[in-house]
Amino acid sequence: FDLVRQFHDAWSGWLCVLLVGIVAGGVAGVIDIGARWMEDMRFGICPEAFWLNKDQCCWSSNETFFEGDNCSQWYSWPEVLGAQHDSAGGYVLAYLCYVVWALLLGLLAVRLVRTFAPYACGSGIPEQIKTILSGFIIRGYLGKWTLLIKSVCMMLAVSAGLSLGKEGPLVHVACCIGNIIAYMFPKYGRNEAKKREILSASAAAGVSVAFGAPIGGVLFSLEEASYYFPLKTLWRSFFCALISAFILNSINPFGNEHSVLFYVHHERPWIFFELLPFIFLGVLGGVIGAAFIRSNIFWCRFRKTSRLGQYPTTEVVAVTLATALLAFPNPYSRMPSSELINVLFNDCGPSEGIDLCDYKRNFSSMSQAIETSEAGPGVYTALWQLAIVFVFKFLVTIFTFGMKIPAGLFIPSMVLGATMGRIVGVGMEQLAINYPNWWVFSSECTAGENCITSGLYATVGAAAVLGGVTRMTVSLVVIMVELTGSVSYIVPVMAAVMAAKWVGDALGREGIYDAHIYLNGYPFLDSKEEFDHTSLAADVMEPRNNVPFSVITQNSMTVSEVESMLKETEHNGFPVVVSKESQYLVGFVLRRDLNLALAGARRDGVPGQSLCLFTAAPTGQWSGPPPLQLRRILDLAPITITDQTPLETVIDMFRKLGLRQTLVTHNGRLLGIITKKDVLRHLKHLEVEDLEQVPFH
Amino acid sequence: FDLVRQFHDAWSGWLCVLLVGIVAGGVAGVIDIGARWMEDMRFGICPEAFWLNKDQCCWSSNETFFEGDNCSQWYSWPEVLGAQHDSAGGYVLAYLCYVVWALLLGLLAVRLVRTFAPYACGSGIPEQIKTILSGFIIRGYLGKWTLLIKSVCMMLAVSAGLSLGKEGPLVHVACCIGNIIAYMFPKYGRNEAKKREILSASAAAGVSVAFGAPIGGVLFSLEEASYYFPLKTLWRSFFCALISAFILNSINPFGNEHSVLFYVHHERPWIFFELLPFIFLGVLGGVIGAAFIRSNIFWCRFRKTSRLGQYPTTEVVAVTLATALLAFPNPYSRMPSSELINVLFNDCGPSEGIDLCDYKRNFSSMSQAIETSEAGPGVYTALWQLAIVFVFKFLVTIFTFGMKIPAGLFIPSMVLGATMGRIVGVGMEQLAINYPNWWVFSSECTAGENCITSGLYATVGAAAVLGGVTRMTVSLVVIMVELTGSVSYIVPVMAAVMAAKWVGDALGREGIYDAHIYLNGYPFLDSKEEFDHTSLAADVMEPRNNVPFSVITQNSMTVSEVESMLKETEHNGFPVVVSKESQYLVGFVLRRDLNLALAGARRDGVPGQSLCLFTAAPTGQWSGPPPLQLRRILDLAPITITDQTPLETVIDMFRKLGLRQTLVTHNGRLLGIITKKDVLRHLKHLEVEDLEQVPFH
Repeated sequence: FDLVRQFHDAWSGWLCVLLVGIVAGGVAGVIDIGARWMEDMRFGICPEAFWLNKDQCCWSSNETFFEGDNCSQWYSWPEVLGAQHDSAGGYVLAYLCYVVWALLLGLLAVRLVRTFAPYACGSGIPEQIKTILSGFIIRGYLGKWTLLIKSVCMMLAVSAGLSLGKEGPLVHVACCIGNIIAYMFPKYGRNEAKKREILSASAAAGVSVAFGAPIGGVLFSLEEASYYFPLKTLWRSFFCALISAFILNSINPFGNEHSVLFYVHHERPWIFFELLPFIFLGVLGGVIGAAFIRSNIFWCRFRKTSRLGQYPTTEVVAVTLATALLAFPNPYSRMPSSELINVLFNDCGPSEGIDLCDYKRNFSSMSQAIETSEAGPGVYTALWQLAIVFVFKFLVTIFTFGMKIPAGLFIPSMVLGATMGRIVGVGMEQLAINYPNWWVFSSECTAGENCITSGLYATVGAAAVLGGVTRMTVSLVVIMVELTGSVSYIVPVMAAVMAAKWVGDALGREGIYDAHIYLNGYPFLDSKEEFDHTSLAADVMEPRNNVPFSVITQNSMTVSEVESMLKETEHNGFPVVVSKESQYLVGFVLRRDLNLALAGARRDGVPGQSLCLFTAAPTGQWSGPPPLQLRRILDLAPITITDQTPLETVIDMFRKLGLRQTLVTHNGRLLGIITKKDVLRHLKHLEVEDLEQVPFH
Repeated sequence: FDLVRQFHDAWSGWLCVLLVGIVAGGVAGVIDIGARWMEDMRFGICPEAFWLNKDQCCWSSNETFFEGDNCSQWYSWPEVLGAQHDSAGGYVLAYLCYVVWALLLGLLAVRLVRTFAPYACGSGIPEQIKTILSGFIIRGYLGKWTLLIKSVCMMLAVSAGLSLGKEGPLVHVACCIGNIIAYMFPKYGRNEAKKREILSASAAAGVSVAFGAPIGGVLFSLEEASYYFPLKTLWRSFFCALISAFILNSINPFGNEHSVLFYVHHERPWIFFELLPFIFLGVLGGVIGAAFIRSNIFWCRFRKTSRLGQYPTTEVVAVTLATALLAFPNPYSRMPSSELINVLFNDCGPSEGIDLCDYKRNFSSMSQAIETSEAGPGVYTALWQLAIVFVFKFLVTIFTFGMKIPAGLFIPSMVLGATMGRIVGVGMEQLAINYPNWWVFSSECTAGENCITSGLYATVGAAAVLGGVTRMTVSLVVIMVELTGSVSYIVPVMAAVMAAKWVGDALGREGIYDAHIYLNGYPFLDSKEEFDHTSLAADVMEPRNNVPFSVITQNSMTVSEVESMLKETEHNGFPVVVSKESQYLVGFVLRRDLNLALAGARRDGVPGQSLCLFTAAPTGQWSGPPPLQLRRILDLAPITITDQTPLETVIDMFRKLGLRQTLVTHNGRLLGIITKKDVLRHLKHLEVEDLEQVPFH
């Protein structure tokens, strides 16, 4: 029987992550399908089976696509309402339907969030991955209401055409799933540290389903939650991520045979010289990222401090209206973001009808007909439109991210980067075609042939802006590689991400997630920042300057004395020392435990004059009433440091051991206490003093 | 100027890993080219240009291959010596040349190692990655002689046809490079902890070049060196790994356009039902791995304790002779291991001439001619030969791994797994062809068509045996994925690795690396083992049972008292307390520092009666000679714990903070000390008591 128990004990963790993986994969599949359907509903309907989206509708008709874009089974709204598709009236009608749908969906999303689950807003990555996994607890943040409402509203918000993605929220949803399932297993539900293991795995699963990138998911969970990531769960997280990706893949919501979100296939390898424009894209990405973070934080702070924050619904409706009105006229901003990214990432085929692919083709020899060469006028129109999309999306995303709806930043950042990258890519392409004899091109390109892949520039640009905005590194590169399924472009992506991170860090140290954490004031100790000050523990600890320090003496305080101490102070815990005269540390007792024990004792009729005992054997006779034995709530192994410990070591211990406080001693005598908040306050203080920042790290 | 300094400070790390990456990539390229050339030298020579290997020789001849195997430019030894290639005499001559070459190369390798660099033997992964990265220092282990000799001997040993690989040693070589380059940067060369960051990156680069797997390399370094892996260097390690892979790729030693070691391309996806045989392969892999570890450790222990250990040269020559004699007759063991793996991993093309691909092809319809169907007699012969190879390689690897030559285990394990997997795969394939109506096949396969990919089974089998032998997890899966370049088979590989790990762990808890670490007695605390005993710090610390404890009192010991204490004890450090009566901890002083300070003082003529002072301000007048101020060598911030701390927490602190010892106090009073060795001894002791092991973890 003992073996069975051990067996169950060992397997419950695996079973738990298996369930998380399956459910996360399933939920992600449902969300993907739902979002695609609702997105297409803005444009039209499938009258024969309204529950099908455009692609499915067209598949059901057994008909080959004509114009690559429309099929007779699918009716756009003007067609349904009897207007001609191409007429001016039809355009107005389509415009109107698009805007009305967007408004309806946006309104519904914000009302649902406001009514049922206020925590369902935002991306969730700053709060949940970074802060919760570092040990902070936000009640209800990972509950079933958040799960349900966030899943639904994510679909609504994406379908409303707002400039947001569902990737960040998917991570939050996966963590909710992990949290709920963890409660089914007592071993994990009851222990916060153990539950964090499950949450790490869930976060990995979330990224895995969001991008179809299991390895990237694990690395994301590791890199962003590195604060307290137990390496022994790496394997379990990977399992969880893989299961969820496998389930999602079996559901196949993208309706293609590739298991990746944006399937990219380039014919040509990149040439060494191209590293220069890639690094240039990285620099641009860093600048854009830093500018975005500043503007967004400025706007969010304005929202917090002004009256705007009191009208979240109005805000969402207004932004949705503005987005929809401005997005429709431009074909590239009208299409769903993920479709736009797909178009930008891929090269032009010979038969593609969009403006971007309007190349003058060389039909002199039939075999070469596919090669694109000089750009036609359509390409230049498309570039202008893309430039407008870039500016529009940049501005609108600043206002969107931070509103009271689920909103991820990955897709908008990728749109920004892909437009920018494609523009640079087409520019390089035309350079190579018009100046084939320039030395950098002449060595690698044969004349008249195209040797620059503009789609690759879009991929690299997307990685660069993502790097600038989120400041992710390894995980971002791996996600991009897995996302596009092409390992051969790992070096360009890496170069761009690196440049973006350095430039971004030079312009403003925090990524968007850290910036939002500081904005919201969560207690979070960044584990990647290097620390190079010479403070000692004695400079940080409380109390300093001989302020009295609330300690409990071992065997000499009465119940009422302890109670009044609890009332007068607000500390979360109290050190226990030998006596007032010899303050040698005995242990540490938590306020919560003390409250419970004293309340229980009072209920049992223990009088206020009873002594509180914290040692094992009471010696001698008691003059007063029988003492209250509190030894069981005393933590006899608090972590202590000496007052001469460098702050760097203290921070290291906080991070690596996941501490909330540590006691400071000198020659064994208790001097004070350092909490995580004390450290953060001190660091903030130093930062203000320290105007000249280290440019790179 | 300050900015320049800061800039240099921030960039020196990047510059350092950049250099490591470039040099590691270059060295790996040279080793790969050298090893291929020497391998081919066993069979013949390119008379026109003896420095070319067979492939290059044939390329230079502008001739299309005939028989896919030979070209007129390349002369086998019998041809050079005038004998007919096909005659019996030719065979004997080829055999003889093969054996003689192997013996010469093996002898040279072992003599070089013995004479110049004794540390160059073995795989290097147990010692160096695991032990050195955990904080242990082995002088000269990462020096330039080790680098040079190991690089050369690796080529020799591989070319001698021994059952060993050059992947593990490549990691060691990369670490040597990292160590040497770190000394060029004072920031890294002088600080052991900082140097470990570079070594982690180097290890990642080593795996990266060994397998062409940069992501896998980083994960390997993370998983195997997780003991002390600083997450902030993850990005730098990744950079290093990528640079080295890029350089190696530019050198292109494999002479193919794919950047992977074994390029695999399968046409068919795997079907869900196949997970069963994959898991079966995993179970086999676990069993084989455990059996291999036990036998190998048994043999290594025998070598250590018997007289065999005194004749390393004889041993190597004997094993080389036996290997060469037995390997030549069988075509699959005769070819170089990496070529064999390549053959086994890939499906049979329509024109391949080897026995393994002797399928009865269905030529009735021309378009279907490629489909393999029923196996011909050649396939069965090949299966027998493969089975013999399996047994032979298993036995010979047991004797090979641990000899005094550079020897990696990856390639031999992969050979074992690939042979096993291919045999199972062909079996499954024939099942599917002969029983196409069986329900598991009927749903997925059309009759007469082959729906089982036997090459995939070889890949999965290789991963399974590797998992069983090394007990790696995530990094192994990622390496296999990157190695074969096919992301689509990540689920089968994962399933097999998982099964192998569980079965292996149930049969014997340690992987081969850990087993060798224990065999050699290195102080290494496994960071992945879960610990579930209830010991307290008080049970582990030294001294127990009132044995006297060597402490230094703050301001009351004379120089000669301290000197005699240093002589009488062998501790690496001594706690300093307030006084004999009140043993409150003041700090900790290292034996090394104490020795230096006292020797220096003696040289300056400080008499033995001088007091040693450890506090700042000496109070009062001194009756004797002026006291010796030792405050500067006193560590005022030693890590302390209380005697009631659970051992689990203690181990956690050792691991995460990279401690070597911690001091144990009770109510501020010093009780004892716990060193890493005390913990290891206690764990060993518990393990012996604890006969019933947890079956899974």
